[in-house]
Amino acid sequence: MDFVKTEYIEFAELILESGEKLGPVKVAYETYGTLNADKSNAILVFHALSGDAHAAGKHSADEKKSGWWDGLIGEGKAFDASKYFVICANVLGGCSGTTGPSSINPGTGKPYGQDFPLITIKDMVNCQIPLLDHMGIHSLLATTGGSMGGMLALQLAGSYPDRVRNVIPIATSARVSAQNIAFNEVGRRAILADPKTPPNDGLAIARMIGHITYLSDEAMRRKFGRKEKGEKSFTTKFGDPQFEVESYLQHQGLAFIERFDAHSYLYITKAIDRFDLSVEGNGSLKDALAKCKSRFLVIHFNSDWLFPEYQALEIVDALKDNSANVSYRVIDADFGHDSFLIEVEEQTKAIASFLAGSNSI
Amino acid sequence: MDFVKTEYIEFAELILESGEKLGPVKVAYETYGTLNADKSNAILVFHALSGDAHAAGKHSADEKKSGWWDGLIGEGKAFDASKYFVICANVLGGCSGTTGPSSINPGTGKPYGQDFPLITIKDMVNCQIPLLDHMGIHSLLATTGGSMGGMLALQLAGSYPDRVRNVIPIATSARVSAQNIAFNEVGRRAILADPKTPPNDGLAIARMIGHITYLSDEAMRRKFGRKEKGEKSFTTKFGDPQFEVESYLQHQGLAFIERFDAHSYLYITKAIDRFDLSVEGNGSLKDALAKCKSRFLVIHFNSDWLFPEYQALEIVDALKDNSANVSYRVIDADFGHDSFLIEVEEQTKAIASFLAGSNSI
Repeated sequence: MDFVKTEYIEFAELILESGEKLGPVKVAYETYGTLNADKSNAILVFHALSGDAHAAGKHSADEKKSGWWDGLIGEGKAFDASKYFVICANVLGGCSGTTGPSSINPGTGKPYGQDFPLITIKDMVNCQIPLLDHMGIHSLLATTGGSMGGMLALQLAGSYPDRVRNVIPIATSARVSAQNIAFNEVGRRAILADPKTPPNDGLAIARMIGHITYLSDEAMRRKFGRKEKGEKSFTTKFGDPQFEVESYLQHQGLAFIERFDAHSYLYITKAIDRFDLSVEGNGSLKDALAKCKSRFLVIHFNSDWLFPEYQALEIVDALKDNSANVSYRVIDADFGHDSFLIEVEEQTKAIASFLAGSNSI
Repeated sequence: MDFVKTEYIEFAELILESGEKLGPVKVAYETYGTLNADKSNAILVFHALSGDAHAAGKHSADEKKSGWWDGLIGEGKAFDASKYFVICANVLGGCSGTTGPSSINPGTGKPYGQDFPLITIKDMVNCQIPLLDHMGIHSLLATTGGSMGGMLALQLAGSYPDRVRNVIPIATSARVSAQNIAFNEVGRRAILADPKTPPNDGLAIARMIGHITYLSDEAMRRKFGRKEKGEKSFTTKFGDPQFEVESYLQHQGLAFIERFDAHSYLYITKAIDRFDLSVEGNGSLKDALAKCKSRFLVIHFNSDWLFPEYQALEIVDALKDNSANVSYRVIDADFGHDSFLIEVEEQTKAIASFLAGSNSI
């Protein structure tokens, strides 16, 4: 089996939506499969809040886990690496190779931290266009992503209608709900309230909140229920986890601070909260998507309460109002929002047949 | 209009479920209405996590807000103070007059803090029995409460079957879900991670998490949507609230630290998480409730995702399996879990007619 490798490009400057100039900008990315001669088989995959460029395969035999969407990307899979050239880059503001708050600020020689400028979902998309240009890819066969990744896919479709022929937004929204903003804000407060450097207790708490919202009540019941770690006693007060669900959350929090930067968490969640694609249509999502020429496959999971169905339908309805070519699939999986990362079979069927139906490869 | 007054009783010792002895114990309580000659018209109301003894009326003309359940308690209301004698006491472990972690530990002359023993929902009930004895009330006409208050009402019905004739558990559960434990645990982590004394940043974060879970997605959309505080700009980063929902949460967090003790939050949420009434029936909720002789009215709100309907139905089913006299009402109100505090009209109809149907006054 071939191992995959993270690669990098760097460019001098990115002009942000705020008007600020950021530079130099480095982008970390991986590719799977082979770009065909006329460069028509490229699929750009966007990752979610805590993801990275390592979407599939392994970097070495020692690596315990494959990339975060290995179930869907690879030979014979939904995004079939024997047919397609799949690209995934770490987003702007991230902490896994692409320029973000933990990168060195050339003005000071120190990490940006909160001197990093506010970035948007559109800035994240704009940051990956030079990568496509670098590869000589003018028109993507498809773009896709789950959660925040779906927002980037929608933004790319809206802002670069000539550069993509098929769009697959999964478990996502054109603008998140007040409840979603609220959960993100509490996570940010936990980080900002932590006086330590780095504010890892705060980051762990933010991640724990996130994990509760990524799972469904049903999935948590099945996975943990009220199971306790040991005997029910009165000696454990608050320090050690008593219930298995507490132990799980604590583990998720601790694992996260090993690999993620608290400032990236602040900047990326803020970009998610600020994202409202309808702004580009002066408040009309229909108008914001009016120039899209792509086919669309919108996927929602019935147990996803963080990105509820009305948000998926808002996208579908806006596209239908534009007489766009849109398919809508609700997949029955009870993992909650995390379903896009976990459920493979139904997503594979839906995506593979949708891509097979594209006559533009 | 008459003003209400918080009163106190004190007793020497309470033996806790853990076997530990706690004493002296003070209980803060209020009453509304008049106890009749044969002491048969008393209703014991239990409050939720952050509640107190001040359930109705005002202490003075200056007080801005009436008690937390003023919509339901008073003359002509659901718990009609012209007919009934309504009692509400601050729970054991609380911080509003009843002994809790912020009380002085007689052994050290300082507040207990984390030296306070672990307490349970049953301990909270046991702590209010001396109050009933003090008043000479052997048998309550009814007991009720929402959320944690409903757990106490169920526990009283299960543990003291001879002392209550009607039970009205509202928006509650006989054992909370893994998801509920998870939210409480993250709140506790935020408090424990805060190095300051008192850990008010942590307490504010815990409260913010709580508030998200008390509201429905629909209620948040209607109340806040994506409305922003001021102009959409790139100058606000993370310090000041950008969205109205952020401002609301921040306000709730700050208001809470003015009136609540972080240690009480730890101890009370832990009691909620540990509560599992079925334990008293060796795992069978039916058996745990087997000795109950009361009539029951179980109320659930259709938008309450923190205490979902399957939890209400678990109680109803266990009672039905015992051939108990049980009515079940689902009330259509979209405020989420907070509905029990906000919705008045339908609760009043259901409760007033249920109480009127009691022939045991």
